Amino acid sequence: MNGAETLLQTLLDNDVNVCFANPGTSEMQFVAALDRHPAMRGVLCLFEGVATGAADGYARMAGGPAATLLHLGPGLANGLANLHNARRARTPVVNIVGDHAYTHKDLDSPLESDIDAAAATVSSWVRRPATPADVGPDTAAAVAAALGAGAPDDPDPSRTGTSGAVSTLIVPADLSWSPGTSSSPRHARHALRTVPDSDIDVVAALVTGPEPTALLIDGTGLSESGLLAAARIRKATGTLVFCPTWPARLRRGAGVPSIEPLGYRAEAVGRQLSGIKHLVLVGAREPVTSFAYPGRPGILTPPGMTVHSLVPDAGFDVADALTRLADAVTPDLAVPLPVPDAPPRIPNESLRTENWAQVIGALLPQEAIVVDEAITEGMNTLAPATANSPAHDVLGLVGLAIGQGLPVAVGAAIASPERPVVCLQADGSALYTISALWTQAREALNVTTVILNNRSYAILRAELDRVGAGEVGPAARALLDLSRPDIDFTALATGLGVPATRARSTAELAEQFSAALAAPGPHLIEAMLQSD
Amino acid sequence: MNGAETLLQTLLDNDVNVCFANPGTSEMQFVAALDRHPAMRGVLCLFEGVATGAADGYARMAGGPAATLLHLGPGLANGLANLHNARRARTPVVNIVGDHAYTHKDLDSPLESDIDAAAATVSSWVRRPATPADVGPDTAAAVAAALGAGAPDDPDPSRTGTSGAVSTLIVPADLSWSPGTSSSPRHARHALRTVPDSDIDVVAALVTGPEPTALLIDGTGLSESGLLAAARIRKATGTLVFCPTWPARLRRGAGVPSIEPLGYRAEAVGRQLSGIKHLVLVGAREPVTSFAYPGRPGILTPPGMTVHSLVPDAGFDVADALTRLADAVTPDLAVPLPVPDAPPRIPNESLRTENWAQVIGALLPQEAIVVDEAITEGMNTLAPATANSPAHDVLGLVGLAIGQGLPVAVGAAIASPERPVVCLQADGSALYTISALWTQAREALNVTTVILNNRSYAILRAELDRVGAGEVGPAARALLDLSRPDIDFTALATGLGVPATRARSTAELAEQFSAALAAPGPHLIEAMLQSD
Repeated sequence: MNGAETLLQTLLDNDVNVCFANPGTSEMQFVAALDRHPAMRGVLCLFEGVATGAADGYARMAGGPAATLLHLGPGLANGLANLHNARRARTPVVNIVGDHAYTHKDLDSPLESDIDAAAATVSSWVRRPATPADVGPDTAAAVAAALGAGAPDDPDPSRTGTSGAVSTLIVPADLSWSPGTSSSPRHARHALRTVPDSDIDVVAALVTGPEPTALLIDGTGLSESGLLAAARIRKATGTLVFCPTWPARLRRGAGVPSIEPLGYRAEAVGRQLSGIKHLVLVGAREPVTSFAYPGRPGILTPPGMTVHSLVPDAGFDVADALTRLADAVTPDLAVPLPVPDAPPRIPNESLRTENWAQVIGALLPQEAIVVDEAITEGMNTLAPATANSPAHDVLGLVGLAIGQGLPVAVGAAIASPERPVVCLQADGSALYTISALWTQAREALNVTTVILNNRSYAILRAELDRVGAGEVGPAARALLDLSRPDIDFTALATGLGVPATRARSTAELAEQFSAALAAPGPHLIEAMLQSD
Repeated sequence: MNGAETLLQTLLDNDVNVCFANPGTSEMQFVAALDRHPAMRGVLCLFEGVATGAADGYARMAGGPAATLLHLGPGLANGLANLHNARRARTPVVNIVGDHAYTHKDLDSPLESDIDAAAATVSSWVRRPATPADVGPDTAAAVAAALGAGAPDDPDPSRTGTSGAVSTLIVPADLSWSPGTSSSPRHARHALRTVPDSDIDVVAALVTGPEPTALLIDGTGLSESGLLAAARIRKATGTLVFCPTWPARLRRGAGVPSIEPLGYRAEAVGRQLSGIKHLVLVGAREPVTSFAYPGRPGILTPPGMTVHSLVPDAGFDVADALTRLADAVTPDLAVPLPVPDAPPRIPNESLRTENWAQVIGALLPQEAIVVDEAITEGMNTLAPATANSPAHDVLGLVGLAIGQGLPVAVGAAIASPERPVVCLQADGSALYTISALWTQAREALNVTTVILNNRSYAILRAELDRVGAGEVGPAARALLDLSRPDIDFTALATGLGVPATRARSTAELAEQFSAALAAPGPHLIEAMLQSD
């Protein structure tokens, strides 16, 4: 048993049994050990951003973390953007980065760089074992840190029970090839904390009081039980309930009480919160704009609104707090759910921003996992179009670093092989991590990707107006334009081993989407959206 | 004139007139300003690693830097690996990263991250202007820092005249949209320093002395004048001359004195340096292995060899030092060059590791720029196969972070539009930054890419043996295997707008390579290499 095997066995002992890997020389001991530890599933990703995004998607569905396996500082660098997204989504990720042997560090060989500094930008916990004897305990601590339970020797007790996070374990190659020690046992998992009764009472008084109040809910509050409690509160008191525009994971569809996502634009949020006197944060952060604009506030809560916090951070049980709040304001356990409409008849017409999501909504299968990186194309259309679809989960782009969708779909499909994954993917963002399609093909994952091809960075066209940049000419427009040449996503998918088709009308999208869902393995549909 | 225009005009005033961009909302003012400053060429890249790699390739050929334009921390993160390569290649890059407005930073909005920390891992200089009045001076300082001339207020005079580097200028959005000031003038360029005569004399005594001596040359010593001087020294004294395995830029081919690259593997270097008593570093670093291996030294110079440094860093004029050393040891200005062989007749056979490079060598056009990310496939074959090709420049993978080739080809083609660019690209590495092909198509660049498709991370197969990882089973092999499914690079290229063909034999490669060179714009040839 060498150090790499100690690492691997400790991961397994701590319930981490999937590793999304793009290894190099410094990680070869780990790779070689996989055959001696068949319980660990190694999944090859052809770019580190695929590995980190897949680990994010996996944990959002599985609850517990997967591991990554990245090669030195440049490998970590390539994975940072999707680790940023995982950090923002509070997803547990055990991020394993191989490093040069300690004996080699001082030589400043070509791939040497400051791994620790780069890792710290996305990780709540960064450590490198100092000796072979540290490998087991540090690996177990990395899993615990990812789960938010705090490392066993964490000096800060307030971290105990915090939310999921990225923990980065940096493993020098000589510790991997040195004789290992026995693996380290499973860490005890810390339970989520519960909100004190007194805090529930304060908010109960608010929502039953005379002033208009709204809840902004995130985290486990967006599970089915959390949403049911929110609906009871809304029914009993008229309190409005909102969630972030793109939450990490949201339950939605027929039989699930609905919740209104805050708009992406400040103007939309202003209308949604108009007249509200109290906004109660329930596992959510105070809403701010994604970007600053000249002369406009970044805080989305209007002046005169009081912001309260019922659940101060994601280390608390949000669904429990909502249920107790509902119990406090109403004994009524039932809420009327809208009777699902019959699947709408979509007239056959050219695909446009306004109609593609209706096709998806009409045909979404039961218990789908919807990965939403539709960005502009789904901003105002996807939630209403899928409100009456069979119950499903939606995984959103919390951290706004584009290129998450295809990798998150990989991870979600591996975590939940029995569920169909539908990845709604903007065209520009898809190119960041397009090789995720290859991993979908190799692993025969049931992912149906719909590329929303509008041949532009559409969101930036809107932003160019909003930042007051003045008159816009052809040079500026060229930098937001994805035509000249047009990109053929069916060719890209085919080249990476995923069968692909192209849809230009609602009827074609419907037919191809149904066919893709009916056949095993990954498929890609390029939805050619006509501009208005 | 707003701050973005101050930035843009200052870049132009400092001779930076190409910007490789993947912008977002925080960079929209810069984008909008492009139409008012048409001297700046904005080149859209569909992934930040393409933008940073292109900036590297551009400056290796142009001498002066290009700018990048990246979007916040995640955009920088995606560009870090190729900035690592630029850092290792000592390439000047003005790396511009947009940030949130100062007024927005405290809100910790979704894309907020520690840009400064990430930038510091690859940059010799990181600064963010504090006020609108700082934008011009800080931009001029960024260009100077990239050129290695030292910022005007650099407290360390030893930096003056150091080599090219990555300088990162972080530009908060509110400084871009605030009223700007006048642009800042061109910084004086500091000349390279020259090595003192006394140091030349010491080395002259060594190379004319009785003990076997070798020179290891890098930097401008690998220019035509540097190589001529090296050849004179070799002819007069029998001194051996070497260069790194993959230098940043090397002149090669008919009419250029040849130089032997050090092997990638320690065993090969051991044979090359066998019997040498003195190794003189001429603008080069002391050679070390790329990775550590159990029980083997990382330093490549054998025990008993003395290492001397003639040119202590790249801030010195390496070619000048070599020329003066040659003048000191021989008045003879001429060296016999091998008469170029007639283009070899390549028998028509299946493409293999051993023969593909001969086809390239036989058909390489005059003044080609050869971008070499062939890795395993070119390690022992490319240099001999092209030694008698028409004179050309070779741009190598100094920093070993894969995914450099296609982007470097973009930048080199934009810097030298009159020269054909030939990109020899390993398959696994190509996928990291495959969207560079789209930029090649949009900009109609004369790049011929040859994908060396061996359907594996071949270098890792070799490494798996070398690290002593023990018996290797199917799970380990699967993580190094790029088949299941096979990747179709012709489909990927076509999907990104680049015409592509597939070659299975030397005759097909020869025919397709000639045709690609004869036609304008980018082309891709997928060379299907048979395993032995």
